Amino acid sequence: MNKLYVIGIGPGGQEYMTFEAMQALKDSDLIVGYGVYTDLVKPLFPEKKYLTTPMKQEIERCRMAVDAAAEGRTVAMISSGDAGVYGMAGPILELAEGKDVEVKVVAGVTAALSGGAVLGAPLTHDFAVISLSDLLTPWEKIEKRLDAAASADFCIAIYNPSSHKRADYLQKACDILLQHKGPDTVCGTVRNIGREGESFTVLTLQELRNTQVDMFTTVFIGNSQTKAAGGRMVTPRGYKHD
Amino acid sequence: MNKLYVIGIGPGGQEYMTFEAMQALKDSDLIVGYGVYTDLVKPLFPEKKYLTTPMKQEIERCRMAVDAAAEGRTVAMISSGDAGVYGMAGPILELAEGKDVEVKVVAGVTAALSGGAVLGAPLTHDFAVISLSDLLTPWEKIEKRLDAAASADFCIAIYNPSSHKRADYLQKACDILLQHKGPDTVCGTVRNIGREGESFTVLTLQELRNTQVDMFTTVFIGNSQTKAAGGRMVTPRGYKHD
Repeated sequence: MNKLYVIGIGPGGQEYMTFEAMQALKDSDLIVGYGVYTDLVKPLFPEKKYLTTPMKQEIERCRMAVDAAAEGRTVAMISSGDAGVYGMAGPILELAEGKDVEVKVVAGVTAALSGGAVLGAPLTHDFAVISLSDLLTPWEKIEKRLDAAASADFCIAIYNPSSHKRADYLQKACDILLQHKGPDTVCGTVRNIGREGESFTVLTLQELRNTQVDMFTTVFIGNSQTKAAGGRMVTPRGYKHD
Repeated sequence: MNKLYVIGIGPGGQEYMTFEAMQALKDSDLIVGYGVYTDLVKPLFPEKKYLTTPMKQEIERCRMAVDAAAEGRTVAMISSGDAGVYGMAGPILELAEGKDVEVKVVAGVTAALSGGAVLGAPLTHDFAVISLSDLLTPWEKIEKRLDAAASADFCIAIYNPSSHKRADYLQKACDILLQHKGPDTVCGTVRNIGREGESFTVLTLQELRNTQVDMFTTVFIGNSQTKAAGGRMVTPRGYKHD
């Protein structure tokens, strides 16, 4: 059957890719993705065919990938991070339903993990991943999730904390979190994970509230046990004695 | 400075490891871990030194790794999945504080992602990761998190859903989730992710409640939008129209 790989390539450079992802790229004739990601892969496989569409045309891109696979090509649809987390595996599976295409999802390291590794160990205990983008989700739903996650002392990884149109969203989110979490809760930000200029900060929730981050940043909120250790952000494995 | 890598090797076979993890193993003189994981790595690096301790002696294992690094060896501490998620990066960073050891955390593909890829795309939208193990966490805290995550319509990945002593924990958890999520909520289980005998099931929350799973299983709970598509579990990217 015709094969369509949906591949998460991790945060950036080849070193963060799995061997499975690399093998799937090797197996493919056609590599589809947003230009920023296909540009990362091109130097490794200059002989392959590439298909890109502008940002925000994700569904059109998925449709092209499914159609190309249905026509008999072995296709790789690539995205950063993991293929599933806010990714294209979902739309691809829906579009491929009923077609002669076998979809193989290849997992990758999402920003909660790659950014977590940079910060230290912010997500050692139960955690929630929440995107602040209200493009496809009503803001009230996002607020409800922030409130619920904070009320139950989850560690939280925040994706898409900011954009030009949403400069104050992280501040709004922190105000919700501050209703349940103390102002001294240990938090962290990581910018340009796995790319040139990677940097991180460990700071309190109150400080985070008054910090402006950009769209290349992932934000981490600790639970009540999270501490700063040696300049890193560390959440203990439990609530009882180790 | 002496180097201590804390490496997540993913769900099992070498193909799920990142190139960064492989390079860190190559750089190391001594590889420390639970025997099941060092056995996976030994065939790749038969010439390295290995140090294992029985299960449940994790902190002792971390201490040995930190001490060996402080004595001048380049050490790799390995665990399955990601190094941070319920992993050893946290204890290692705490134990290494104030010592002449540079800790480098190498992220890996945790079961939420590797299992998600097997099922399809269960975690396309905001999600929570919750462990049902009450070894280090009071059960009331776990109940509260299940309740909070379900009330805010999170997708949920459940780790450690069962053990010999906790045969009814998943059932208890489902009963909490059923207070907020419909009995027809699409769920999934994946067993032996990335290992021989890998298998998955897509089922309803009500069916999951009456299913016995084992400790080699990761459980996925959909949000209100999650559906079954082509036998896979698929959560849409949002609540508005794509």
